Amino acid sequence: MKYLIIYTHLNPNSFTKAVVDEVEKIAINKAHETKVIDLYADEFNPVLKFPDIQYSFMDGEAPKDVEIYQQYITWADRIIFVYPLWWQQMPAMLKGFIDRVFTNGYAYMYEESGPKGLLAGKSVQLIINTGNPSELLERNGLHTAVKKVNEEGIFEFCGMTAETIFFGDVAMGTDNERKEYLKSIGEIID
Amino acid sequence: MKYLIIYTHLNPNSFTKAVVDEVEKIAINKAHETKVIDLYADEFNPVLKFPDIQYSFMDGEAPKDVEIYQQYITWADRIIFVYPLWWQQMPAMLKGFIDRVFTNGYAYMYEESGPKGLLAGKSVQLIINTGNPSELLERNGLHTAVKKVNEEGIFEFCGMTAETIFFGDVAMGTDNERKEYLKSIGEIID
Repeated sequence: MKYLIIYTHLNPNSFTKAVVDEVEKIAINKAHETKVIDLYADEFNPVLKFPDIQYSFMDGEAPKDVEIYQQYITWADRIIFVYPLWWQQMPAMLKGFIDRVFTNGYAYMYEESGPKGLLAGKSVQLIINTGNPSELLERNGLHTAVKKVNEEGIFEFCGMTAETIFFGDVAMGTDNERKEYLKSIGEIID
Repeated sequence: MKYLIIYTHLNPNSFTKAVVDEVEKIAINKAHETKVIDLYADEFNPVLKFPDIQYSFMDGEAPKDVEIYQQYITWADRIIFVYPLWWQQMPAMLKGFIDRVFTNGYAYMYEESGPKGLLAGKSVQLIINTGNPSELLERNGLHTAVKKVNEEGIFEFCGMTAETIFFGDVAMGTDNERKEYLKSIGEIID
């Protein structure tokens, strides 16, 4: 299978980067063709502007950067997003990647009967690091809400399957807990 | 009262802009001191980078743009966000405004007992335009999830009260429906 890892964090020494490295290592060990996109290193521009709209809804051409990332998405069988949860939502950098790359006519289209996802057959995994303990976010329903806006709101809308894995308490937790998270990636990546 | 309107849309001819203009007009008519921030016109940079982290978690200085927007927030009694829902979430531009401006030590802090919101006494209203009909998003629980990640995940965390108003079906609906939305703003803005 072809695995695309899309990684979003400003700090190359973050735990998020350690997770990405482990996901990549395991995907390669399991003989998947594997590519990694690092949105911060790429200095991706997350602000949707007129050329995007012209391309997506009128007759314009795809902005060059959007076209390149769409080729990655097209190539992949599985897309694994690794990022921290800021304010219970993805970082602006990654939100802008969705806003700009998952365009009308590429990721979905509207038919008489309603919207139709154009990325069917691909699967998405979200590996999300949070500062809050997972028990807290599960108890107050935030995990459910976060899964819903992402899985249904973005990926299933485009026809993909999606699942979410939370690694909680990553900042204040112990080194041992973080090691356990890294170890669990072997079961997450099949 | 002091009303701060924070507006996010790339198109100055959008319905979102018509909503902003109406909110501003009514706030002024009701004798509120009123200011408007237009994040696209300001060319706000939504990407959180190292200077933000140094300021928020170490001993650095606030980036100049962050400092200016924090002064607006500090000034306001009520903050009204007007924006379109893209992928059931706010545009990257606005998400980055939250990521960068609502910093540790300004919008919240951590005490022994847990996090404490530092913006108590202020109220937030979100006026969100969606392409989908409201009935659909209510039925499948997406409205509830969107409210939760925003109201609880961001604004109540900072000690503010928050409420959300959805204007659904704004692209495919009729002119008359859009006029009714604009008329309803008189009751939303008190």
